[in-house]
Amino acid sequence: MEKRDLIYEGKAKRLFSTDDANLVIAEFKDDLTAFNGAKKDNESGKGALNNKISTELFKMLAKNGVESHFVEMLDDTHMLCKKVDIILIEVIVRNIATGSLSKNLGIPDGKVLPFTLVEFDYKNDALGDPKLNDQHCLILELVKNEAELDQLRAMAREVNSILRPYFHDKGLNLVDFKLEFGRDKDGKIILADEISPDNCRFWDLETGEKMDKDRFRQGLGGLKVAYEEVLNRILG
Amino acid sequence: MEKRDLIYEGKAKRLFSTDDANLVIAEFKDDLTAFNGAKKDNESGKGALNNKISTELFKMLAKNGVESHFVEMLDDTHMLCKKVDIILIEVIVRNIATGSLSKNLGIPDGKVLPFTLVEFDYKNDALGDPKLNDQHCLILELVKNEAELDQLRAMAREVNSILRPYFHDKGLNLVDFKLEFGRDKDGKIILADEISPDNCRFWDLETGEKMDKDRFRQGLGGLKVAYEEVLNRILG
Repeated sequence: MEKRDLIYEGKAKRLFSTDDANLVIAEFKDDLTAFNGAKKDNESGKGALNNKISTELFKMLAKNGVESHFVEMLDDTHMLCKKVDIILIEVIVRNIATGSLSKNLGIPDGKVLPFTLVEFDYKNDALGDPKLNDQHCLILELVKNEAELDQLRAMAREVNSILRPYFHDKGLNLVDFKLEFGRDKDGKIILADEISPDNCRFWDLETGEKMDKDRFRQGLGGLKVAYEEVLNRILG
Repeated sequence: MEKRDLIYEGKAKRLFSTDDANLVIAEFKDDLTAFNGAKKDNESGKGALNNKISTELFKMLAKNGVESHFVEMLDDTHMLCKKVDIILIEVIVRNIATGSLSKNLGIPDGKVLPFTLVEFDYKNDALGDPKLNDQHCLILELVKNEAELDQLRAMAREVNSILRPYFHDKGLNLVDFKLEFGRDKDGKIILADEISPDNCRFWDLETGEKMDKDRFRQGLGGLKVAYEEVLNRILG
């Protein structure tokens, strides 16, 4: 597979076209950003860890019937993916209140939610990824109809119902995570982006230790060690 | 009806108990606030205008089958109301994009929305009245169930379907407005708070002139003249 032109650069990945119009190559960067890009850093090897973690999780989800854009891992930092049109909604799934949810709505940090919360944020850096209700999504024409929003919610809950016990078995509490979805060449909505400690929160079940990007957001240090530990638990 | 103890003071009104446990007296203040209290002023006579405007609108809505907490106007600045437990959701109804909607979601100011948008904001000054989706409302226990959220949306749309043509006939474009609802002594959800240029946006149909609190928010001056004009159009 030939890596051709850069077609998109995000905060954590670059996307390249290939000699197949239906496939793209994602390059996982070592860049770290938080608070909508206000805090920045770089951690050598972070991209490779997220590529490997996402690869394992996409494979595991596929075995459980969740279709994603993942095709194969090409090397440490490159993943071959189906080309999709990204839906500009960040789908946030929360099992436990923390971070912006606690700050914005005054829900105590660490409170187990009475049910799994699914939120839609507008994937728009310039606007700071504002929260959306269903009607906003329709007015902004981010999806075709209400049924597609229900489909996104159902797919997000399905991913959670697979990932949560999977990580529990590995001693990690899946606190919350962000998913992105896209339309493939046939218009089918499939899971896209990545699933990694950059966009999931994992708390060690025994110690409560944060094993995700909150180590960077909160200046706790030890980010790479934590990501390596997540990968090792997935592999082991 | 005897005005007894102050039981609540908000940004624009004070509530007093009475000798009837099921009735309260609302006193409309002359205070003006915007941007969650960051901008403040006082306009003599503003409270009386809002009391009169709300009185006319609650009466008109009652004739059209919309039940509210309104009982009667007592004098220029006092309204007798049924005592309700306020539901801590600000129900925002928008026909045209402007203000925070345009700013937050990048929708052009003045764009007529493809359908009437109903938003829920958390009535919580300390948190800055954040936007809520349905699941947030349930997690925060602001209502009992999803059906009550549908009821709030339906009631808000019903009020809009009455107010919008009513004001159109009076040469005013009803751009958006905020409603509050409460539970009466029997637990029935009814319309509460006030309906005035403090929480509605009116644009003159001919000139586009703003006839509401945006004159204060945007430092345009002439607030009282505009509120008087709204009252005169309602009465005339």
